[in-house]
Amino acid sequence: MKNLFLTFNLLFLLISCNKEITNSVFVKNSSELNDAIKNAKPGDDIVLKDGVWKDVEIEFSAKGTKDNLITLRAETPGKVFIEGVSNLSFGGEYLVVSGLHFRNGYSPTVNVIAFRTDKNNVANNCRVTNCVIVDFNKLERDNDDLWVQFYGRHNQLDHCYLAGKTNGGPTVRVDLKGIESIKNYHKITNNHFGPRPRKGGARGETIQLGSSFTSMSPSNTTIANNFFEECNGEVEIISSKTNFNEIKNNVFYKSEGSVVTRHGNYTMIDGNYFIGDGENENYGGIRIVNTGHWIVNNYFYKIIGENFRSPLAVMNGIPKSPLNRYNQVTDVVVAYNTYVDCKSPFQFGVGTNIAQSAVLPKSEIRSARPIRTTVANNVIYNSVEDKNVIVEHDKADGVLFKSNVINNNGADFKDSKRIKSANFDLNKISDNIMLPNISSVDVKPYNGFDFDLIKTDLAGNSREKNNAIGATVKADITNPNILDRSKYGATWFKVDAIVEGKTIKVSASDNLSEKINSANKGDIISLDAGKYIISKSLIIDKNITVQSASENKAEIVFEGAENTPAFSLNPYGILTLKNVKLSGNGKNQAFASLKEKMSNHFGLSVSDSEISNFNYVLKAYKQTFAETVTFKNTSISNCENGIELSEETNDRGDYNTEFLTIDNCTFNNVKQNVIDYYRGGYDESTIGGNLLVTNSTFTNCGAKEKNKMLLNHRGIVNVDINNNTFKNNKVQFVSILWGAKNNVESNNTLINSGKINTEENLVMKLMY
Amino acid sequence: MKNLFLTFNLLFLLISCNKEITNSVFVKNSSELNDAIKNAKPGDDIVLKDGVWKDVEIEFSAKGTKDNLITLRAETPGKVFIEGVSNLSFGGEYLVVSGLHFRNGYSPTVNVIAFRTDKNNVANNCRVTNCVIVDFNKLERDNDDLWVQFYGRHNQLDHCYLAGKTNGGPTVRVDLKGIESIKNYHKITNNHFGPRPRKGGARGETIQLGSSFTSMSPSNTTIANNFFEECNGEVEIISSKTNFNEIKNNVFYKSEGSVVTRHGNYTMIDGNYFIGDGENENYGGIRIVNTGHWIVNNYFYKIIGENFRSPLAVMNGIPKSPLNRYNQVTDVVVAYNTYVDCKSPFQFGVGTNIAQSAVLPKSEIRSARPIRTTVANNVIYNSVEDKNVIVEHDKADGVLFKSNVINNNGADFKDSKRIKSANFDLNKISDNIMLPNISSVDVKPYNGFDFDLIKTDLAGNSREKNNAIGATVKADITNPNILDRSKYGATWFKVDAIVEGKTIKVSASDNLSEKINSANKGDIISLDAGKYIISKSLIIDKNITVQSASENKAEIVFEGAENTPAFSLNPYGILTLKNVKLSGNGKNQAFASLKEKMSNHFGLSVSDSEISNFNYVLKAYKQTFAETVTFKNTSISNCENGIELSEETNDRGDYNTEFLTIDNCTFNNVKQNVIDYYRGGYDESTIGGNLLVTNSTFTNCGAKEKNKMLLNHRGIVNVDINNNTFKNNKVQFVSILWGAKNNVESNNTLINSGKINTEENLVMKLMY
Repeated sequence: MKNLFLTFNLLFLLISCNKEITNSVFVKNSSELNDAIKNAKPGDDIVLKDGVWKDVEIEFSAKGTKDNLITLRAETPGKVFIEGVSNLSFGGEYLVVSGLHFRNGYSPTVNVIAFRTDKNNVANNCRVTNCVIVDFNKLERDNDDLWVQFYGRHNQLDHCYLAGKTNGGPTVRVDLKGIESIKNYHKITNNHFGPRPRKGGARGETIQLGSSFTSMSPSNTTIANNFFEECNGEVEIISSKTNFNEIKNNVFYKSEGSVVTRHGNYTMIDGNYFIGDGENENYGGIRIVNTGHWIVNNYFYKIIGENFRSPLAVMNGIPKSPLNRYNQVTDVVVAYNTYVDCKSPFQFGVGTNIAQSAVLPKSEIRSARPIRTTVANNVIYNSVEDKNVIVEHDKADGVLFKSNVINNNGADFKDSKRIKSANFDLNKISDNIMLPNISSVDVKPYNGFDFDLIKTDLAGNSREKNNAIGATVKADITNPNILDRSKYGATWFKVDAIVEGKTIKVSASDNLSEKINSANKGDIISLDAGKYIISKSLIIDKNITVQSASENKAEIVFEGAENTPAFSLNPYGILTLKNVKLSGNGKNQAFASLKEKMSNHFGLSVSDSEISNFNYVLKAYKQTFAETVTFKNTSISNCENGIELSEETNDRGDYNTEFLTIDNCTFNNVKQNVIDYYRGGYDESTIGGNLLVTNSTFTNCGAKEKNKMLLNHRGIVNVDINNNTFKNNKVQFVSILWGAKNNVESNNTLINSGKINTEENLVMKLMY
Repeated sequence: MKNLFLTFNLLFLLISCNKEITNSVFVKNSSELNDAIKNAKPGDDIVLKDGVWKDVEIEFSAKGTKDNLITLRAETPGKVFIEGVSNLSFGGEYLVVSGLHFRNGYSPTVNVIAFRTDKNNVANNCRVTNCVIVDFNKLERDNDDLWVQFYGRHNQLDHCYLAGKTNGGPTVRVDLKGIESIKNYHKITNNHFGPRPRKGGARGETIQLGSSFTSMSPSNTTIANNFFEECNGEVEIISSKTNFNEIKNNVFYKSEGSVVTRHGNYTMIDGNYFIGDGENENYGGIRIVNTGHWIVNNYFYKIIGENFRSPLAVMNGIPKSPLNRYNQVTDVVVAYNTYVDCKSPFQFGVGTNIAQSAVLPKSEIRSARPIRTTVANNVIYNSVEDKNVIVEHDKADGVLFKSNVINNNGADFKDSKRIKSANFDLNKISDNIMLPNISSVDVKPYNGFDFDLIKTDLAGNSREKNNAIGATVKADITNPNILDRSKYGATWFKVDAIVEGKTIKVSASDNLSEKINSANKGDIISLDAGKYIISKSLIIDKNITVQSASENKAEIVFEGAENTPAFSLNPYGILTLKNVKLSGNGKNQAFASLKEKMSNHFGLSVSDSEISNFNYVLKAYKQTFAETVTFKNTSISNCENGIELSEETNDRGDYNTEFLTIDNCTFNNVKQNVIDYYRGGYDESTIGGNLLVTNSTFTNCGAKEKNKMLLNHRGIVNVDINNNTFKNNKVQFVSILWGAKNNVESNNTLINSGKINTEENLVMKLMY
């Protein structure tokens, strides 16, 4: 249920700001809208008629005043749908847009919402509120855009819901090129940043503040009171690249990334919640580069990410770094944070690559350790002993540790110079908030330089009297209900609940294609035993399961044309195929993405099935992406090519799937590209993809493989090949592992097959 | 005459700040002083007895309050002399030191005055006022120090006189390493920065704000209302290397350097006077690197420096520059400045070195032109037509020109898109201030972004109404008496007037050595004809002239030991030798500096003389420096070595003399190092030394020269060899010129001698 109070509050705000609404203009189409904008005067209230507005480019150029804003709003908040090839731009002052829902379309320009109309006309004191943008993606993944781009000064995005961006480019970005956009004091507040799927490579940030080229500029942007949920686009959720930004009181919930001070300096990261689950290692915390940041009053729960994704990752810099690389960390303060059940929360020298000097230019070697950095007054609690609380990838000898305390629930913590061991328990405030009860622990907070400016704690309580270490001065606070979605985003918008799918029984005499097309997302197509002869591709454009009704495998025989797939994986097409025999004519494909316009991700999970006689088992085309591709308990035989995910050859760090999992499968007589999974371009901070090959048997495969390698996974960062048998595969190598990254193998049996080698340092093309 | 009003004003300030002086403590020696400091309470007034305080290290650690300062002052301002190995450091708050005179000594540490006592104890709200530091130099030039170093916050140096620093290191420096020293709001105001001699290489700034390593930090230091007179230390007078500094209302008078935004961004350079003489090309203006600077309301008079030293030098940057090199210029505003009789005042792409790609690494190539930069509302007046008002070393295509006006007093100025030609005359306000009378010129000031923040003009008049282009809104202002020295520096201090020297007659029977020793600076030793046989070096430790009384040359025969000089050039030893025969025994030296402890510069000018039979004509040792070395109308013969100024081999950009001039001389049978003048280490922004060889004849020289080159001047930036005759010199090259720099030759006659070659790009060791 949405919070009515908020709605009233917002209305009140709008009314109270518009002291004198002089004119309400109701518009029904673009032409009326343009006229209304053209004639807008301070105090005007332009009301868009409810309904779908298709292919509209709204250029909101007008001049309101502080006391008499000009508003452009939906007749009913949430009932005005901006669709098709549409966008919105602001030029002027004191303008407000509210209540719009962008969906079923994309922008014709690089922004869905831009706070300028052109280079010479930026917006100031303008606001987007109570709006929604969902899946408003360009058709191709490499056609980058930015949904909301800030220019000018004092603009605001608040109480909006944004989710589902799959193409390249941060969801929200602040631009600082030009003096008209510095010291901007923009506000990004009270928004709900809903799921942003993994992008597969860089350029998937949820918020980016500036760029390295403006990293010397004062931005003074505030990101506060937002809810980030499953923001998994890439390794950086928020990438702060300018100076004096504030990131306060946000909730990062199950988001696969970190808040990163990538460029620029003096960021204040204060009073945020980072909530993980103790299982997913991709949920990160705060990663620090550069000078003068303050990380205070933050709460970390079950964040078990390592290295770049650790709760506190303090990087090594490059001495005298080029502008676009890594400056040394200096003058940073990490104080009054609480870490509960995190893994190795303090990591230093992250990103050190001194060992790779042989393959990297000198200007790439991160050897400059943090200096003049203080870690003080932090509290760590571990239900289960953490043996490596502090990880030093390189020495933390430039870091001053003061008044840090741990209850490690295990053997006494030995590193008492840096963290003092103590006994204390937790107060449960909510499922995810457990606050250390450290009142009994006699540790006086360290009073570092300017620490007196930290006036309140995570809960807003004063630190002036009765100060204490940790994120809160006391362990009994009112439950802040951080997961209550009604507190964030548009008042009128509710994320669709997941509907339980129904089962649709299909027999061999039915038109399988029609049955799939008419099914709803989440439905299960249950196939009676028998032979399903298919001549045209089955279109998968939603989440759907196709499985045999009984143990007896239904047989799908695909007689479609050369290089067309039995299952055509369209945008949103997530196929689960279970317990099915699937065969082709040797020239067509079992599964393939579209060749173009894959405006959203696909997915594939195959289990307990038999696949044979295809040219390709899976063919993923360029600019397509699946979060997961899984084959389990499945035999694949007599195919010209296997699983082909190697089209991202532009070497910009992109790849075609985040997770490729092969478990307990048999590959027989797959002639080439048995597994072909590629990532090109070296970018140390993007950490994918993931290849797991386990308990599988590969026999007589790779005969036609030109590069004489059975499993091709060049550039993939996480590779685990274990418990497999490789027999009679005429290749030189079964695999070449990238030793410097997370590539491992174990317990593999190699009979009359190539070798598995490890190459410590792979020579890669630098991305920048 | 000193300004009494100022004195009263200062006293009033001191009194009004010390609302309640509770305790006056009179101290007569270090031990009493230390006790007084130890026991100091807010409001205390510690008074140092008049006289010389030798070898004192004053650690002023105490805590005053805003309303009750603690002062440490001279009994009589200017009558307390701090001498010997002495210094002063502040630790604490609200402390004031006044009236001290540092002289005849040097600091045992890296600072004469430091605003901290050690790393952990910085000063805040402390002040040095009405003090003087003169010639307080370390004994060796390479033993760098900083006379005044700021740490902490809100400290102040005001109404002080500082002059004569000859060793390495900026005179005044603000340090920002550590959060306790950022946002410091230090004030450097109302000081008189007296002559700082040329240092010969880098590290001779008068004021340096931070370093590249803290170039991302906010400093907010103000340098205002100071008088910079003959600050010739190096190419940068003020080197701003941090952010948000203000350089306002200063006078730069005949100072061989520029105000440079070397690192860091957003400097405000507002309302300064840059006064040259139309002759010396080393007087510079403002040189711009990096982002966001505002150069407004400045007045430039007869500044004819070129390139790096031009009135406005906008540099090219290195794309994605390393931290310590050159960032691109972006978002800079140059507005409302006035240029009178300057040469090519607007220079862009300064420092471009694309042509040197062959000898420099890619990370050194300055190819990034300025972008998003505005040059507007400036006025240029030239009494004599300047054909190249705008010089584009690289294209200024990223610069917006608006409402700039010129009276070029010549053919109509053609570049009217960038600067509009107009007729207007000048109002003479004082000898150096001539203001354009542009009221008749119909050019409306361009109103750029944030231009409304430029509220006043150079004279402090409001720009809000009746605004006009140029540094002042009207041409008739009250004479600001910018050269009235009584307005700046310590109230009690007066620079010694130059006293006319007397002539001391000396005959061959006198003890020449004693006569020289007892002479005063500026005196002339007039030698009767005859032979002066000298067995020990004559000590030159002041400015002195030695000349023959009549046309008949006196003969000085030096019989001193091997490798000792006839004239020993000590610190301050500036020798003018005229019309003298000087001969040695073939193993000793005519002129030489000391081998060590050259705490101040020497100088040498020889004319109408004959020098023969020495091992060295001139031997300058390492860490010694002469501003000028000149030989005119002089014959040099039968010497093993000639003029040797090549000891600075550490390749840090240092050299032994700024100007070496050889005019109308004959060199005969000088076997090696005929001229040996070296500068090693490539630093593009330091622009010395200077070698002029004209109208001279070299015969039978260089026979033993190992490198087969007659004139060795590797690394010297300005070389001019013209109208000379080279005859029978057994060398391969007479000279190899550095084409990319300012090395030229003309009209030389080469007979049976080596060649003169030009090498465009010299391979040099990079200095950083």
